Amino acid sequence: MKVIVDFTVVPIGVGVSLSPYVAECQRVLERSGLDFRMHPNGTGVEGEWDQVFAAIRDCHQALHEMGAPRISTTIKVGTRTDRQQSMNDKILSVEKQLKKK
Amino acid sequence: MKVIVDFTVVPIGVGVSLSPYVAECQRVLERSGLDFRMHPNGTGVEGEWDQVFAAIRDCHQALHEMGAPRISTTIKVGTRTDRQQSMNDKILSVEKQLKKK
Amino acid sequence: MKVIVDFTVVPIGVGVSLSPYVAECQRVLERSGLDFRMHPNGTGVEGEWDQVFAAIRDCHQALHEMGAPRISTTIKVGTRTDRQQSMNDKILSVEKQLKKK
Amino acid sequence: MKVIVDFTVVPIGVGVSLSPYVAECQRVLERSGLDFRMHPNGTGVEGEWDQVFAAIRDCHQALHEMGAPRISTTIKVGTRTDRQQSMNDKILSVEKQLKKK
Repeated sequence: MKVIVDFTVVPIGVGVSLSPYVAECQRVLERSGLDFRMHPNGTGVEGEWDQVFAAIRDCHQALHEMGAPRISTTIKVGTRTDRQQSMNDKILSVEKQLKKK
Repeated sequence: MKVIVDFTVVPIGVGVSLSPYVAECQRVLERSGLDFRMHPNGTGVEGEWDQVFAAIRDCHQALHEMGAPRISTTIKVGTRTDRQQSMNDKILSVEKQLKKK
Repeated sequence: MKVIVDFTVVPIGVGVSLSPYVAECQRVLERSGLDFRMHPNGTGVEGEWDQVFAAIRDCHQALHEMGAPRISTTIKVGTRTDRQQSMNDKILSVEKQLKKK
Repeated sequence: MKVIVDFTVVPIGVGVSLSPYVAECQRVLERSGLDFRMHPNGTGVEGEWDQVFAAIRDCHQALHEMGAPRISTTIKVGTRTDRQQSMNDKILSVEKQLKKK
């Protein structure tokens, strides 16, 4: 089952500067081979359900190994059976609508 | 890796009455053997990472089979390495704090 | 506009024990007069849009005053115009479905 | 209080094509004068707490007026008192970290 996911990892107990942890998670995604893109408040990823959630699990493990004792992550997951849709398609659909008016 | 998860499944394209779908997802969780509890805006689940996310995947599959062409789910995931904590422990910690003042 | 909200406040930069902060947020909700109920992974609240979001803003302010330099909160918001629905109604709808099979 | 918000609006009961609704919400944001940017799975917005949540409320109202009987929205909110940070700053912090290794 294909999924489009958007997630935000918040390490807890490591102070206020979270960017080293967010960067480490980007490296985990890089190694996963999945298609992903960062935005200011999270990261979008697409792929097979099991692979995507294994990659997010690997982020948690990598961040615990870096010293984060606690992690709170928010994930949005979309699946659809009516048609295939990529992250690019989603943006294009909205842009097409915006041009209508 | 143990996780505490809270998730909300929103089937799209099946009208406004979502309770038959939420109920089906409860049945999937029942069969998973995981510890879970429903609240008005979602369901809390605890267990091993892979088992919990397999159960949520099975909810998506069951809801697609019921006829939902599209599903949007929001998931909060917590992991910690400093100590074990159950959903009950979380509630008890806050209640202890509330009694202090 | 009536809303049903579910939210989870994560103070960042205050160590791993978050329960004193979660408890303070419960006190803010108590003072707001809104109908709310805590569960292991967040708190459900219902009321008018502006009052509910003012209460969550007041939680942020109270937690910053307690010393949290950074806060990350996740909020789910539901509104509907087809009929009135309370948090209790949502639970009852699902329970009714669960009894069917 | 300044906030950085990321939100995803899911209209329910209007079929599977949500892009006309997402586009309408972009128009509401445009009129709000707030700084915002869309990504494949949501929209980031920054500004004062009350203005940002009024804009999201206006999205809900606009979508109900378009015919959506029910809307489910997920919002991530960040506030911090230690320093000012924009959405651009967040991306730059992570990119700086990624260059380190």
